[in-house]
Amino acid sequence: MSTESLYELMSTQRAIRRLRPDPIPEDVLKRIMQAAAWAPSGGNRQPWRMVMVHGRDLKTRLGELYTRRWNTFVTGYRKRFTDAPEAERQQQERTIAAGDYLASHMGDCPVVAVVCFNPQFMAVTDADQDRVSVVGGGSVYPAVQNLMLACRAEGVGCVLTTLLCMDEPAVRELLGIDPDWFTAAAVPMGYPVAGGYGPTARMPLGELFYRDAWGAS
Amino acid sequence: MSTESLYELMSTQRAIRRLRPDPIPEDVLKRIMQAAAWAPSGGNRQPWRMVMVHGRDLKTRLGELYTRRWNTFVTGYRKRFTDAPEAERQQQERTIAAGDYLASHMGDCPVVAVVCFNPQFMAVTDADQDRVSVVGGGSVYPAVQNLMLACRAEGVGCVLTTLLCMDEPAVRELLGIDPDWFTAAAVPMGYPVAGGYGPTARMPLGELFYRDAWGAS
Repeated sequence: MSTESLYELMSTQRAIRRLRPDPIPEDVLKRIMQAAAWAPSGGNRQPWRMVMVHGRDLKTRLGELYTRRWNTFVTGYRKRFTDAPEAERQQQERTIAAGDYLASHMGDCPVVAVVCFNPQFMAVTDADQDRVSVVGGGSVYPAVQNLMLACRAEGVGCVLTTLLCMDEPAVRELLGIDPDWFTAAAVPMGYPVAGGYGPTARMPLGELFYRDAWGAS
Repeated sequence: MSTESLYELMSTQRAIRRLRPDPIPEDVLKRIMQAAAWAPSGGNRQPWRMVMVHGRDLKTRLGELYTRRWNTFVTGYRKRFTDAPEAERQQQERTIAAGDYLASHMGDCPVVAVVCFNPQFMAVTDADQDRVSVVGGGSVYPAVQNLMLACRAEGVGCVLTTLLCMDEPAVRELLGIDPDWFTAAAVPMGYPVAGGYGPTARMPLGELFYRDAWGAS
């Protein structure tokens, strides 16, 4: 277990999309899963499950589904940066290249965690608002974040992906997911091909946090 | 900053609902906010903002709104445990008593973080599935979990609440939230009245994780 401090871990929690095929030792994987299990959830219902996909054929099939969605996604994603400064565009092209690698190598990484949820165990308090609901995710993604922070601490690379939710019926059939459960994310995991974790680029606090009123500092 | 290890922090991340009115020092609060800012989000868009509510009148009003929803919620919550074993019922009554305290003292705690999100900066990949959407939360609740883990590390109590999402129009008016942004959570924060953080009760790994297929170990 890493002895680096919490803030050192969080500040270097980079998305890692180039993952080596080397297996993750069972004890390491178990600590990562335990970290997810510790996460809080509404009413402590823990309305999530993770199918840890190890089987080569299953991962390859997930990769095929993912690649199709990724290629469509990238077309739109690239358009957002057409008029961006050259440096920003180059940064985005590096991200896209890493995403291309992930898509074409998903079958090679040792584990893909397919995260599922059951809305029957959730109080979705924003269900009646006239906009997309997110509150159910409040009992799912803290566990995913714990999983990923534990990966960071263990030196295991990973990235939160959600494109496979568009293929939920196919993923359901592939993994035999119970009809009452649905998909929230897929987290490919494995040791990094290149440098791995390191500094990230985030917005300054002044743009993310207000005091007492919207827009106020 | 705490030097306790990541897993020690995660394994004792208990919901703290009894919060002292003592202020949180600015440097502590800033580290907690920075932890949230480090969280990953889809396309690194960081589609969340937090209004850190310090003003007494604002917190009191949030508490009034919260209390009304909480009292309704508790009626249903208690019914779930009518036929539960005595020990479990007593545990739930302790949770309810802590929730009652939170509701009636929200105006007293030093800060309530009201978490907002903007769906225009999200790729909500499960929007077309025939069930409640959660994916937008994947770019919001990792930041909330970072915030809460940092609170844990700093000895500041907190709890993820979502009942105020039912009063989004009133909360929007109170804090002047931009029309393009919506509410995802409210996290009351403050030093614990009683013992604070400690062990939690979570499901065993075997019930939360499957291998290669639903229900398989």
